[in-house]
Amino acid sequence: MNEIELIQCLTRSLPTNKSVVVGAGDDCAVLDVGLPDRFLLFKTDAMVEGIHFTAEAPPEKVGHKALARCLSDIAAMGGTPNSALITLGLPQKFEAAFVENLYTGMGVLARRYEVAIVGGETTTNPERMFISVALLGWAARGKALLRSGAEVGDAIFVTGELGGSRSGKHLEFEPRLKEAQFLAHNLSVHAMIDVSDGLGTDLRHVLKASRVGAELLSSSIPVSREARRAAKAESSGKTPLLAALTDGEDFELLFTVASRDAVPALDAWKKRFPSVPLTCIGRITAGDSITIRDKQGVRPLTAHGYVHFS
Amino acid sequence: MNEIELIQCLTRSLPTNKSVVVGAGDDCAVLDVGLPDRFLLFKTDAMVEGIHFTAEAPPEKVGHKALARCLSDIAAMGGTPNSALITLGLPQKFEAAFVENLYTGMGVLARRYEVAIVGGETTTNPERMFISVALLGWAARGKALLRSGAEVGDAIFVTGELGGSRSGKHLEFEPRLKEAQFLAHNLSVHAMIDVSDGLGTDLRHVLKASRVGAELLSSSIPVSREARRAAKAESSGKTPLLAALTDGEDFELLFTVASRDAVPALDAWKKRFPSVPLTCIGRITAGDSITIRDKQGVRPLTAHGYVHFS
Repeated sequence: MNEIELIQCLTRSLPTNKSVVVGAGDDCAVLDVGLPDRFLLFKTDAMVEGIHFTAEAPPEKVGHKALARCLSDIAAMGGTPNSALITLGLPQKFEAAFVENLYTGMGVLARRYEVAIVGGETTTNPERMFISVALLGWAARGKALLRSGAEVGDAIFVTGELGGSRSGKHLEFEPRLKEAQFLAHNLSVHAMIDVSDGLGTDLRHVLKASRVGAELLSSSIPVSREARRAAKAESSGKTPLLAALTDGEDFELLFTVASRDAVPALDAWKKRFPSVPLTCIGRITAGDSITIRDKQGVRPLTAHGYVHFS
Repeated sequence: MNEIELIQCLTRSLPTNKSVVVGAGDDCAVLDVGLPDRFLLFKTDAMVEGIHFTAEAPPEKVGHKALARCLSDIAAMGGTPNSALITLGLPQKFEAAFVENLYTGMGVLARRYEVAIVGGETTTNPERMFISVALLGWAARGKALLRSGAEVGDAIFVTGELGGSRSGKHLEFEPRLKEAQFLAHNLSVHAMIDVSDGLGTDLRHVLKASRVGAELLSSSIPVSREARRAAKAESSGKTPLLAALTDGEDFELLFTVASRDAVPALDAWKKRFPSVPLTCIGRITAGDSITIRDKQGVRPLTAHGYVHFS
């Protein structure tokens, strides 16, 4: 049993109660706490040394990333973050300065979005640092943007550029909170997610939750300069397009709107965020698969985002 | 710098915002979310394999303990738990059955208290399992029982019996939620904490937050049968009293009430919880130290709860 199968198994029959609007399976849990205008968002995200960051990474950036990842999940709901708890598993020989600087990085980002850090815990994790952030936020009541709202015919949009995040962006990215709140309040977004595992994988989450398929337009995928550079330098066999589809840790927003709203959405976006690219990369289709269209025709995209060249 | 010094350093200047009623430093964070009758409680607690449980422990009990520890913190505020997120760091070779049974144990306890499990995350922690629970709960507005309310002259009470938890109780204990809610709603409790690190250490947290001292009565400390048994069997040199003062993981409630309320409190308790011991173990004093009185006189208790035999 792999991790994905395990999660499917574990989340099949979780305890619930009447405050739960959305439980496991979206970017955040959504809770109705009895406020007339708002839903509570609840999220945790963990980072592990050697997996999500190296011991050599600057601690301020590690702290920034730990909180930013969680903020990106609040953004994916069109929400506003409020307060966080920080859990640190520390190796036996931790450097106090590393932890202090990690908190500095986290604190700078927290203050930028008026997020209170209201405590947490340190414990021992002998072999490596383990950082878990628990975050609360708010979404306008009934306006939390879920993964499950995509409809056949919708235009699919993505912010920014994709791929190559590991060359630096993953430690420095700004969570798309402002942009997401603009989308939630000004456009009729049907479904949204943040791109953390790679465009292919995260789009698949939206499609599964919405019970639809998608067709992407190869030439429209916004490939980052870093992805192009890595393709040249590493000769890894990963084309820039494949990097953009699969690299992960982009923390961009992926969302759908009705096709009639696509052009007005682009116009409104360009006025509000002239320096942030927004690209229509395809459309929602009936069925449950992802295909990608280029000059040579239409090909299926496999479960992990890789393009089948048949 | 040790862990305690590090935490003091980190929590000195955390970002805050106007929703924070109580930040770092109590059993839970307390947030004002704009509800007229309630405050939101927010807490995380982590358990690490080899430290808080062994790989041989029954997984249902590991799951029970992971959630129960966090519920005990909600109890310590006189609160009602509502919903939880579960973060699992899994070793490369995890057994799916272990994780499923861990979730079963957690689910049984969650259902008993109508706690929704609204998601979480699994990630890799290569060498050992890491379990973090994030929990939300509610306290009546203005009635969250803090560590900081103890007053000179207060009677100090503890529920249950102390010491020897490692022989089994730490994996099976029932969080004192019912009892704590009774206290919050029926008695004038000044300060409360749950005994997780040992009576001496946790009492010291209350004293520090309240800027007071305490005198304990040696013969009144409720020593558990397990602590007595361990003292005989292990010949560890730890007397039953020392075990009760320092063992930790008791997850009992430690609280103070005004001296005039002490006898009425005992009477009310006995009617409501006839089978749960409640013991007055001493009184709050001026100053900042803990002393312990026995037949031979009054002795100071050191920072870690150990009795100085001079």
